[in-house]
Amino acid sequence: MVEAALRSGAASRRCVFEVFARRLPEGRRYGVVAGTGRLLEAIEAFRFGEAELEALRGVVDEATLSFLAGYRFEGDIWGYAEGEAFFPGSPVLVVESDFAHGVVLETLVLSILNHDSAIASAASRMTSAAGDRPCIEMGSRRTHEEAAVAAARAAYIAGFGTTSNLEAGRRWDVPTAGTAAHAFTLLHDDERAAFKAQIETLGKGTTLLVDTYDVPKAVETAVELAGPELGAVRIDSGDLLVQAREVREQLDRLGATKTKIVVTSDLDEYAIAALAAAPVDIYGVGTSLVTGSGAPTAGMVYKLVAREDASGSLVGVEKKSKDKQSVGGRKYALRRRNARGVGEAEVIGIGEPPVDDGDDRSLLVPLMRAGEVVDREALSLEKARTRHTESRAELPAAARRLQRGEPAIPTIYDAGSR
Amino acid sequence: MVEAALRSGAASRRCVFEVFARRLPEGRRYGVVAGTGRLLEAIEAFRFGEAELEALRGVVDEATLSFLAGYRFEGDIWGYAEGEAFFPGSPVLVVESDFAHGVVLETLVLSILNHDSAIASAASRMTSAAGDRPCIEMGSRRTHEEAAVAAARAAYIAGFGTTSNLEAGRRWDVPTAGTAAHAFTLLHDDERAAFKAQIETLGKGTTLLVDTYDVPKAVETAVELAGPELGAVRIDSGDLLVQAREVREQLDRLGATKTKIVVTSDLDEYAIAALAAAPVDIYGVGTSLVTGSGAPTAGMVYKLVAREDASGSLVGVEKKSKDKQSVGGRKYALRRRNARGVGEAEVIGIGEPPVDDGDDRSLLVPLMRAGEVVDREALSLEKARTRHTESRAELPAAARRLQRGEPAIPTIYDAGSR
Repeated sequence: MVEAALRSGAASRRCVFEVFARRLPEGRRYGVVAGTGRLLEAIEAFRFGEAELEALRGVVDEATLSFLAGYRFEGDIWGYAEGEAFFPGSPVLVVESDFAHGVVLETLVLSILNHDSAIASAASRMTSAAGDRPCIEMGSRRTHEEAAVAAARAAYIAGFGTTSNLEAGRRWDVPTAGTAAHAFTLLHDDERAAFKAQIETLGKGTTLLVDTYDVPKAVETAVELAGPELGAVRIDSGDLLVQAREVREQLDRLGATKTKIVVTSDLDEYAIAALAAAPVDIYGVGTSLVTGSGAPTAGMVYKLVAREDASGSLVGVEKKSKDKQSVGGRKYALRRRNARGVGEAEVIGIGEPPVDDGDDRSLLVPLMRAGEVVDREALSLEKARTRHTESRAELPAAARRLQRGEPAIPTIYDAGSR
Repeated sequence: MVEAALRSGAASRRCVFEVFARRLPEGRRYGVVAGTGRLLEAIEAFRFGEAELEALRGVVDEATLSFLAGYRFEGDIWGYAEGEAFFPGSPVLVVESDFAHGVVLETLVLSILNHDSAIASAASRMTSAAGDRPCIEMGSRRTHEEAAVAAARAAYIAGFGTTSNLEAGRRWDVPTAGTAAHAFTLLHDDERAAFKAQIETLGKGTTLLVDTYDVPKAVETAVELAGPELGAVRIDSGDLLVQAREVREQLDRLGATKTKIVVTSDLDEYAIAALAAAPVDIYGVGTSLVTGSGAPTAGMVYKLVAREDASGSLVGVEKKSKDKQSVGGRKYALRRRNARGVGEAEVIGIGEPPVDDGDDRSLLVPLMRAGEVVDREALSLEKARTRHTESRAELPAAARRLQRGEPAIPTIYDAGSR
């Protein structure tokens, strides 16, 4: 495409590309934008090195190779801030540049936003179901080795407290936590020897895994060895509802009233909600988090919505493909809120910003100007995490229902005064 | 775990870790092992650098830091060759080393095998449904940016002909292919100008996207501009079955009888099968491929199955957790075949290899010995691809049914003469 556009001369036309999801995954009430921070860093660093150019020699012509060799994104980018909720049609990212520089970014933009937003969207439902109880992200083993690091980051934005992925800790300061595996118990001559070794090294505040052989026996041994200061026990199999109650009773009976109960074992948002009445203190979530709990990709697309015409004016463009029509024109967006600050609609302005009713909140923030990140501080993970909490709290209560349903607020297109 | 095991002295015990999936994803008939080649490279390169050690300072003690600083895997690894079919309980990887060196690899091993095998398992069903028609992998935008590259590789192993991911082409010589997007058409003043630009640059053999505005009109323009040498047209929306027929008729009527039809638009193995009777030449598959078509992870686990005891002998170990019991002991495996070479069972030997009936095929091959790759040539992508074709062809016909059902062959544990 770049080669043909360079040759036809259209490559230099000013363009507006827009990222949006046509719909939310089946039954979901809202989505969560994540990956923005990673994406802006990736765009700043996006270059074609010698090895890449060499591989493309013969695939594209010399003019295209030379364009790619000098590639550096120098356009403007607006978008929803990381952690923000989004809805069908929300213009989560708006890229303004010439065609060639903008179209080259498509795969990078969508890969990062689709992956990270899918994880954050699932994670938000889980932390919402967990209420005040902390969630540990522990799904690294169930997804691609680099996706795992990004998943830990996205989960943290959406309210997870910690991750077992140490690289996410190193790279982005995501708080880390972990517990021992069954292998540690099986390695030792017996469970007592394993618990003893773990307590000697990690202290009585550690979390002991109690379901390798027989849960009541393990709990007894654990409290015998660590006393009432035992930090936590982890249950990873069987009926968690029943076992959490039994273990809680046993711990209390043994005097370990402050010892916490961590549950793991294929938890998802529904299992977490089902355990709300059980004496569980911490949820460890793996597989279903890193696979987006049934929706492993956010379904965002990157579409050309406006471009310069022969006379130099910017005109909206849209495809007419069956079931896949797009809405042309540069978009603006605000979250319409009632006087109590509760979200009522996602209002999308075409060609100009929609009018603020007084209690509304504008959603598109400048992210990159002439290829430079506008506000590096606003990209911090902690800010995204806080932003997510606020954005979710602002949605109507229906948003936090786990049952399948319509998006929590409708999307309204506002063609403005045109 | 490593710190506690180093302190308890158990870290140096000889261990056998095993990778297996307890079950196949709901209704699947077989799984496909992929990622082995990537994994062995990753293990050879697995080191803790200065930055990683610095981040772990304070998390683990000095003895553990020093162990990690000197980390280099020097154990032995056996496994199913890449591309091979697997079933519940198949010991797809067997890692022999001391505890500390083996346990550290868990996340790396599982991340790579779970991801790549999930993609290859889905891809194999798609290429099976597509029969002789080639499939193009084009899902990069719907998954993490690095997972995308690995997904293209896994899809190729399972029979996809090409990928739109150029990095997979560069890194592993996966053949690449691509078509233009709607943005290219929308960029130009009209469809004719876009087609003209594309043909001028890429020749008449190119693939023109014909559903941006009106399909019959686009096909007419395409043939008018390129003549009967037009390579292909792509349809990306609407009812593909109906449209493929209409477009084929129109192309034939216009004399473009050799022009091919590429279809894309949320295809999965079922949609591919439904198009078997339609005049489609090539399938382009994106989202559902890179998300494993409903099963985004292969569900493999990494379990300690044997370890040295105090007297120095290797003993089988297994956990008794409810619903998650493991089978202790070092495993061996063969595919039992009848006299016609058709697979009949996955026979897993515990502690010793099962006896070959005469027509059987041993499944575990040596992959790494004392930390060195045993046969680098056997790891080639082309060999894995051929191996997959053969392994799939050897399974009973039921394996290639798309309907949900039981695994194509049963798994039988054979405790041998013990």
